[in-house]
Amino acid sequence: MKRIKLTIEYDGAAFSGYQVQPGKRTIQGELESALRSVFNSDVATFASGRTDAGVHALGAVVHFDPPKEISPFRLMGGLNAFLPDDVKVVACEEVGEDFDARFDPKRKMYGYRFYLSRCELPLLRGRALRVNENIDVERMREAAKVFVGEHDFKSFVARKSGKTNFVRTIYSADIVAVERGYMLVISGNGFLYNMVRIIMGTLLAVGQHRLAKEDVERIMESKDRRLAGKTAPACGLYLLSVEY
Amino acid sequence: MKRIKLTIEYDGAAFSGYQVQPGKRTIQGELESALRSVFNSDVATFASGRTDAGVHALGAVVHFDPPKEISPFRLMGGLNAFLPDDVKVVACEEVGEDFDARFDPKRKMYGYRFYLSRCELPLLRGRALRVNENIDVERMREAAKVFVGEHDFKSFVARKSGKTNFVRTIYSADIVAVERGYMLVISGNGFLYNMVRIIMGTLLAVGQHRLAKEDVERIMESKDRRLAGKTAPACGLYLLSVEY
Repeated sequence: MKRIKLTIEYDGAAFSGYQVQPGKRTIQGELESALRSVFNSDVATFASGRTDAGVHALGAVVHFDPPKEISPFRLMGGLNAFLPDDVKVVACEEVGEDFDARFDPKRKMYGYRFYLSRCELPLLRGRALRVNENIDVERMREAAKVFVGEHDFKSFVARKSGKTNFVRTIYSADIVAVERGYMLVISGNGFLYNMVRIIMGTLLAVGQHRLAKEDVERIMESKDRRLAGKTAPACGLYLLSVEY
Repeated sequence: MKRIKLTIEYDGAAFSGYQVQPGKRTIQGELESALRSVFNSDVATFASGRTDAGVHALGAVVHFDPPKEISPFRLMGGLNAFLPDDVKVVACEEVGEDFDARFDPKRKMYGYRFYLSRCELPLLRGRALRVNENIDVERMREAAKVFVGEHDFKSFVARKSGKTNFVRTIYSADIVAVERGYMLVISGNGFLYNMVRIIMGTLLAVGQHRLAKEDVERIMESKDRRLAGKTAPACGLYLLSVEY
């Protein structure tokens, strides 16, 4: 039986995050429930990462070993028939037994979406962060370059992270125009807990002229979380893709 | 006291349409409730149009006569404090007493959003129509030109419309690329009941090779609703703007 790789999209708004938690509605919980309906047995799943409550994904990756033979096409249709509207399988393929969604992604890409407005916009609620119109996006774009390369990101990780190695390589970090606003698009070989949201909070401080690009460099060197910006809210964050 | 013009945005998913209906959650109902909270008295509102359940707006226009003096800035803040997350005032200005949101818009613009996918996408649910990937968008774009100009749109109006004059002028009709899909963007001096959704349904039939551009011309001439396409679902429709 071949291992199956799923690519899933979800709207994180109504979920208590990715990982199964007793009594909570989670993406993993919904996915394993749909798998149970398709296979009539429990199926363990392994994911590229666990997102927090409110965080969205366009291309999260999950693998599992199917208890019985089924074509990827039929499996995708079956799972989507059982999954709720806010999480769906967007791709389903057979992979080798050595594929493991948890380990060694070559590249992960996240987006953080925001828009400039003096009021909250109904069609963007839960999907993007509102910031005041006087923010300087060009200044943020310049400062985003500081993160590119191999760095120790200890200043940009939630203090409750259990990690001890904070060195990660960021391949690209740019602020691009998207519909009705902007997105910080950042890719790297791995990300620490809350890292994108703290980077975003720090870039917002730059855009608001509370920090300069040089301050961001100094914060990186300091390895002190307290000097970086606030953790930006979950609603703006999207796991865009994971490559192996 | 100056008349007030509001521009409002709403996510239509959780509303039973624009117009007040007893026992139903409507946009007008929420707006008049917020006005009551701000002014401590009933305020009658008049809108540029009434959208159906599930239809969205980025720039619906409403006017009313405020029962007491208040600056547009404070009024907008006050209304937004009382309004729910899925409807907000995005602009508020004083206008002359002769301004009437209901009459004589010079130009209304609607968008109908769709995306090509073999499965429903969670982040687009309730916001766009899914169509199969084999649809020919270029063919739809060509056929959309048929609608431009002054025409009798009797073939493209819901039969329950009470209207007797079906002549409207369409200024532009094009299919443009938007994030993750396409939007039919259509502007004109006025639109009949369900007109954009029936035009969209007809263009989808063209994209699926069930109709040709020449058929659309013939359907227009026939003045027979039964020959046009199905009414496309409400979720893809957006009132983009109203100009006076």
